[in-house]
Amino acid sequence: MPGVLELLPREQIAFQRMLDTIRRVYERHGFLPIETPAIELAEVLLTKSGGETERQVYFVQSTGALEQGHAPELALRFDLTVPLARYVAEHEHELHFPFRRYQIQRVYRGERAQRGRFREFYQCDIDIVGKDRLSIRHDAEMPAVIHAVFEELAIGPFTIRLNHRKILKGVLAGLGLIETAAQSAALRALDKLDKKPRDELLAELSAAGLSAAASETLLAWAVERSPGYEAAQAMLSALPERFPAGGALMRAGAEELAEVFACMAELGVPGHRVMLDFSIARGLDYYTGTVYETTLDAHPEIGSICSGGRYEDLASHYTRSRLPGVGISIGATRLFWQLREAGLIRAAESTVEVLVCLLEDALRPTSLALASELRAAGIATEAVLEPRKLAKQLQYADRAGIPFAVLVGEDELARGEVSVRDLLRGEQFRVARSELAATLRVEIEQGRALRRGSP
Amino acid sequence: MPGVLELLPREQIAFQRMLDTIRRVYERHGFLPIETPAIELAEVLLTKSGGETERQVYFVQSTGALEQGHAPELALRFDLTVPLARYVAEHEHELHFPFRRYQIQRVYRGERAQRGRFREFYQCDIDIVGKDRLSIRHDAEMPAVIHAVFEELAIGPFTIRLNHRKILKGVLAGLGLIETAAQSAALRALDKLDKKPRDELLAELSAAGLSAAASETLLAWAVERSPGYEAAQAMLSALPERFPAGGALMRAGAEELAEVFACMAELGVPGHRVMLDFSIARGLDYYTGTVYETTLDAHPEIGSICSGGRYEDLASHYTRSRLPGVGISIGATRLFWQLREAGLIRAAESTVEVLVCLLEDALRPTSLALASELRAAGIATEAVLEPRKLAKQLQYADRAGIPFAVLVGEDELARGEVSVRDLLRGEQFRVARSELAATLRVEIEQGRALRRGSP
Repeated sequence: MPGVLELLPREQIAFQRMLDTIRRVYERHGFLPIETPAIELAEVLLTKSGGETERQVYFVQSTGALEQGHAPELALRFDLTVPLARYVAEHEHELHFPFRRYQIQRVYRGERAQRGRFREFYQCDIDIVGKDRLSIRHDAEMPAVIHAVFEELAIGPFTIRLNHRKILKGVLAGLGLIETAAQSAALRALDKLDKKPRDELLAELSAAGLSAAASETLLAWAVERSPGYEAAQAMLSALPERFPAGGALMRAGAEELAEVFACMAELGVPGHRVMLDFSIARGLDYYTGTVYETTLDAHPEIGSICSGGRYEDLASHYTRSRLPGVGISIGATRLFWQLREAGLIRAAESTVEVLVCLLEDALRPTSLALASELRAAGIATEAVLEPRKLAKQLQYADRAGIPFAVLVGEDELARGEVSVRDLLRGEQFRVARSELAATLRVEIEQGRALRRGSP
Repeated sequence: MPGVLELLPREQIAFQRMLDTIRRVYERHGFLPIETPAIELAEVLLTKSGGETERQVYFVQSTGALEQGHAPELALRFDLTVPLARYVAEHEHELHFPFRRYQIQRVYRGERAQRGRFREFYQCDIDIVGKDRLSIRHDAEMPAVIHAVFEELAIGPFTIRLNHRKILKGVLAGLGLIETAAQSAALRALDKLDKKPRDELLAELSAAGLSAAASETLLAWAVERSPGYEAAQAMLSALPERFPAGGALMRAGAEELAEVFACMAELGVPGHRVMLDFSIARGLDYYTGTVYETTLDAHPEIGSICSGGRYEDLASHYTRSRLPGVGISIGATRLFWQLREAGLIRAAESTVEVLVCLLEDALRPTSLALASELRAAGIATEAVLEPRKLAKQLQYADRAGIPFAVLVGEDELARGEVSVRDLLRGEQFRVARSELAATLRVEIEQGRALRRGSP
């Protein structure tokens, strides 16, 4: 089916390792797993945003409902935020707040098939949801997690960019744009600062209602960026003087963001990974405070690989409780695809670590017993069950990306030994049968460490 | 939405551990991961079996297709076997045969909502698919995996039951039932041997076309079971004498199954977990050889928790290549639900291992630095970000199932120490700050080992 990323096993292993890393980092930062059904009642999923998202929904109906000509009552989730809102509202009294959840599942969008756009893809989300209130300090946890995830994924240097919607709205108001619609139009233009020519941006800002002078002021301001905490704090401190008409809203945003940066430093996020970027607006209307984007320094063309922000109220459609929160999302399928396109990710070696070869049928009991011993020792093992030419067996292991082959012939058997073939180095050695599992464990770990170290 | 099993975080953790265990055992036995999209073209999914399955399919269409009044072209997968067939056919030339794949994903069935029946549930499948041929010996790998999975899940003693369709068909033919439809009806009756009263079974067998005497013979035979390899081999050897009219088909089945049992023993599957059970037929028509079921000895009411079998040709609808295979499936969602109902599974403790408490705001930098250190040491850590009463913080940790709390006051700080509260034992002790991560790592492992050891 077009619009999905279906992987061969060794690519799947590489993808699975990416998801495992993300999950491990999420858990290490104190987030709890939940899963929600892919299918929800359409009326539950479609309360929130209309427009584009709604047109991309996949509707679902059983054979029975279809035959009876009913309109579909079910739909597939198109993100993990709406299901989270429904989940928190439904289980509100059984959860502990602030509720820190991670969720790594597929979502579905009826997009037109297009290169690099997927109809079914993984999102990896974390959110911290408070009841009635949620300290701004939690906003600093998101960059800490982002930093840990992308350090561990080791896909090159990256920059975590922060901004604050109150600063943007305050500055725009100070420049004369008061109405929400006009502000949104200006923010959409600002968001494209790095992608569009200056004259187009000026035209868009003018169309949004900004004067030419105000537009110039805005662009000159938003283009200023320097990495690190000192620069960020200085830029925030300078705001009241730079935009005296920015008002209480802008100043509140600046204060909040200053606290977020302070907490991020305390959480150990290094300054060279951090940037205050006033051009980041995030399209989604429900962000009300801190907003985040993350870019790979060597691959700006990929765009943001992890985004999110702070919102006022998660689940107003499903509960009267006020549930403010902050969250981020990694679109793992698209990220994997982009990294592969950019040559930053390769198919992994096989999950199978050892192939136990079979030289003649009479040796099968020995060979299967060996395979069982290796499995019991936690080593992923495949055993050849019918004798073939050894060259064929080794060729199979090599092509399948299995790093080690174990051989037992009459000769080895008589001596209580087995032969081990290291297929990556092309070497072969003998070990005492009783030492096989321990030896292989060490060899496998060494091989992994070596390959991790290589560029 | 009814018909789904939505879990609270600590139940989700227990469920996730079950899936992780299954995945680990599958990988250790040399199976490779694949994932396929939940949505496939309806014509791809619905080639195979009509009837019941077809009526349970969920159809899918995008908003655009719905508005144009098209019949749905897409559907959600209802098992992992049909997608495997499509996958293998599609990627045939990029795969290595025998292709050993595992797949752990959700499937969807438009069932009527009913207690213990789910519309969206996990299946955990392995299959070994050969090209042109596949050695019968691979049939012995399935019980080896089943054994390892249920030993590691530690949900009590279990029995892996095997039978062979050729034996069943040969015996039925020998008793006078030649036609496939009549044989299928008799097998459906036989499959209920342990569930239905004897007179009902006799009536069903009679309706299928068996004489009264033949029915008595069949039931008397199928009810004989004794665990272990010796009993199984003896029962298989006795077949030609017992059913002289069983013919070549029955004898071929007996020989194949004898080889499977022999290989299972070589692979280390203990005899007390193994049983030849002639009443197992498996409903699905495409099984042609070995069939498997697995039952919990103390909970026969749960029925089979892992089933499967050998099939002649996986993907005849999608390719001309002949692809024989053998596979098993664990319905993990239903299994988890049943084990929970039977009291065999509990909500796990939190994935969060440590809560770093915050006693006063001035100590926040210290406390956040501690949290970062613990995370860097691989310990899942949540940090309190705004000071509250200590009792409240400890209560939160206790309720959330977090086993350890870390406290740093002015006093500890001055001495270069921190306090650790063991919430499960109700004890508190101090350690040098530099020793904290290492100490906690040991405590966490000890606590886990203790709880694993407890009944």
